[in-house]
Amino acid sequence: MRGLTKNLLVAQSGGPTAAINSSVCGIISEAMQRGKVEGIYGAVNGILGVLNEDLIDLRDEDPLTIQNLKKTPSAALGSCRYKLSDRDYLRLMQVFTAHSIGYFLYAGGNDSMDTAHKVAQLAAEKNYDLRVIGVPKTVDNDLVITDHCPGYGSVARFNAIVTRDSGLDTEAMCATDTVKIVETMGRDTGWIAASTALGKEGADSAPHLIYLPERPFVAEKFLQDVKTVYQRLGRVVICTCEGLKDEKGGFVKASTKQIDVDRFGHAQLGGVGDYLVNLISDNLKIKARYDKPGTIQRVSMTCASPVDLDEAYRVGQVAVSKAIEGESDKMVTLVRKRDEACECETGLVELEKVALRTKKVPHEFINKESNFVTEEFLKYARPLIGGPLLEYAHLKRKMVQKHLPSHT
Amino acid sequence: MRGLTKNLLVAQSGGPTAAINSSVCGIISEAMQRGKVEGIYGAVNGILGVLNEDLIDLRDEDPLTIQNLKKTPSAALGSCRYKLSDRDYLRLMQVFTAHSIGYFLYAGGNDSMDTAHKVAQLAAEKNYDLRVIGVPKTVDNDLVITDHCPGYGSVARFNAIVTRDSGLDTEAMCATDTVKIVETMGRDTGWIAASTALGKEGADSAPHLIYLPERPFVAEKFLQDVKTVYQRLGRVVICTCEGLKDEKGGFVKASTKQIDVDRFGHAQLGGVGDYLVNLISDNLKIKARYDKPGTIQRVSMTCASPVDLDEAYRVGQVAVSKAIEGESDKMVTLVRKRDEACECETGLVELEKVALRTKKVPHEFINKESNFVTEEFLKYARPLIGGPLLEYAHLKRKMVQKHLPSHT
Repeated sequence: MRGLTKNLLVAQSGGPTAAINSSVCGIISEAMQRGKVEGIYGAVNGILGVLNEDLIDLRDEDPLTIQNLKKTPSAALGSCRYKLSDRDYLRLMQVFTAHSIGYFLYAGGNDSMDTAHKVAQLAAEKNYDLRVIGVPKTVDNDLVITDHCPGYGSVARFNAIVTRDSGLDTEAMCATDTVKIVETMGRDTGWIAASTALGKEGADSAPHLIYLPERPFVAEKFLQDVKTVYQRLGRVVICTCEGLKDEKGGFVKASTKQIDVDRFGHAQLGGVGDYLVNLISDNLKIKARYDKPGTIQRVSMTCASPVDLDEAYRVGQVAVSKAIEGESDKMVTLVRKRDEACECETGLVELEKVALRTKKVPHEFINKESNFVTEEFLKYARPLIGGPLLEYAHLKRKMVQKHLPSHT
Repeated sequence: MRGLTKNLLVAQSGGPTAAINSSVCGIISEAMQRGKVEGIYGAVNGILGVLNEDLIDLRDEDPLTIQNLKKTPSAALGSCRYKLSDRDYLRLMQVFTAHSIGYFLYAGGNDSMDTAHKVAQLAAEKNYDLRVIGVPKTVDNDLVITDHCPGYGSVARFNAIVTRDSGLDTEAMCATDTVKIVETMGRDTGWIAASTALGKEGADSAPHLIYLPERPFVAEKFLQDVKTVYQRLGRVVICTCEGLKDEKGGFVKASTKQIDVDRFGHAQLGGVGDYLVNLISDNLKIKARYDKPGTIQRVSMTCASPVDLDEAYRVGQVAVSKAIEGESDKMVTLVRKRDEACECETGLVELEKVALRTKKVPHEFINKESNFVTEEFLKYARPLIGGPLLEYAHLKRKMVQKHLPSHT
């Protein structure tokens, strides 16, 4: 048993999301209510803030500011991507010791869970009394064991909304602009690209085709798919992500195909959206364009999922209460109770079991043609986006009787 | 004076917006209440629908569907971009005659106003009793005489929101991802790119630099601007539009610089976002990325401006009432009453005076350095986006006293 109260340190890691500040809000709110926690500190810019001893005093913030974190996107403490060296781990222990840190809460993805695990191990080796709890956070939704990851519901809602909107745009302009590509985030997995399917309202509405990095991209098959939809509807909305890969495992993008061979050698120039637009124009001779919401998709509060924001808050709260109860070297998980409604319980899992592992979109969530998701995926993902999208009008379009010969 | 009631035909033209269906809703609602209008028809896919005699009966739609048009983005009747031939104009008259069209309402930009004007002239020449009223619609905000254009307030609100969000993302990740480009729409004018400034909360927040096609882009000056902001803040958010042009008047994009010369000849490959990312990476050796919301920005209902939707509805209503009062060959305008609040009256202007003309962002709305907008622009544009953005939390970040030597 601990005699003295200890200080708590929270850090955010990796890409910002709409929901990670809600987790920090949950952490601070829970810590404020617990007698066992003295100082509540935040690390500026993630683990770099710990290394540099850049800590801020979260008890000094206005309570209203803390509450507003729940509806503030991005990462209010600052974040980073940084791979720690052995020397860095020793420095972390020095900082924890210097500031009497007894609780370390780390919000992030599978790399961050590895960092948190190593911190917990090192503290144990050194007999330093530290409780380390990982708070799951990633729009990529690729942490194992947890049913889903805070951050994903909101990016999924964003992409469902914008794909539906962008699809209506293509439908209205189908006499001229016939093919639209929506390029989502997702380097290693297709969870985000798959979420665009949640915007589909009917058999003919967008998206029509979805390609995920879990299945190799084959240009000939793709062009045939596009042609088939085009011939049926006169328009095609295609969703995919930046991490789409070909049969050799290389990224499908303009740079690997063309730009790398020119004299400029710009590896960054031209992503999958650019590439597919040109592939379609060159081969099918139909006009295509692409939308690439980029980082906008992960930090949109106007399109955030209320379910996601609530769950993010809850995993933050639970992380603190479990740490105070004596748990360490664990990550909070979301455990689905029923299939249809998203009423998740929380659980705990050893950090070691989630660190550095990646959950890909499973086989049963992708259709046989490898060009769309299945009903099982929709059943899994729909509760996460927090309710239906705005209701739009659809005209039934009763045609007026024609009186003239065709205009030729 | 007209003896008989006549039919009304409405058509949508050009790029979809969040607000154009609201205008159609205003048109239908007003026409329903007026005894002088018999049939209320909509042309499918703009002027192509008139040419092809593809007309739908809008009196046959559910009244709730019509009301919901006010909050449905894109163009529910369908739209197109199509340049009419002399033969086409004669065909239009045949279709109007065959369907006893007495009122033609055409929602669009300056090309559409030219079409509407020619239709009105031809009807007059042929002694055909037709009243033609133009309904202003363009996210580009480039119609002359009207204070602003329905559709612009919503795309401006969208870009203010996403630039602020994307800026928070860059701020959080400034230890690694330091430069962000937001590429907006806008081929000929910088109104849309300028609107990103409405998301700026303080001197240090995004956007930091804005480049408009009204001023020639000079790479050396641009790189110096980026360097200056980077040295001050450690991060830079830059907004510009697809129509940015260099000193020779050519589009600033990867394709004109590099891709056109390769063996593939892809004119479309790589826009201004791609180009600037590579320009910065190559010359300043700092990491840059870009967001390109594309068509998403013009059809976002979650980010639409309520002021814009209301005004769009009103110009639709007024178009019908003025046509019934006997006006023709005119466009409805918005006339600003006071500077601060957006309480616009409507007016009328001869179609001839707006047809084919383009209102560029004026000199006094762009700063001397040609890298941002002025306070006058903000004063002009702020009322159009319909109220403040969501309130976000900003931590004051009181630093905890350091105890250790620096980590080196």
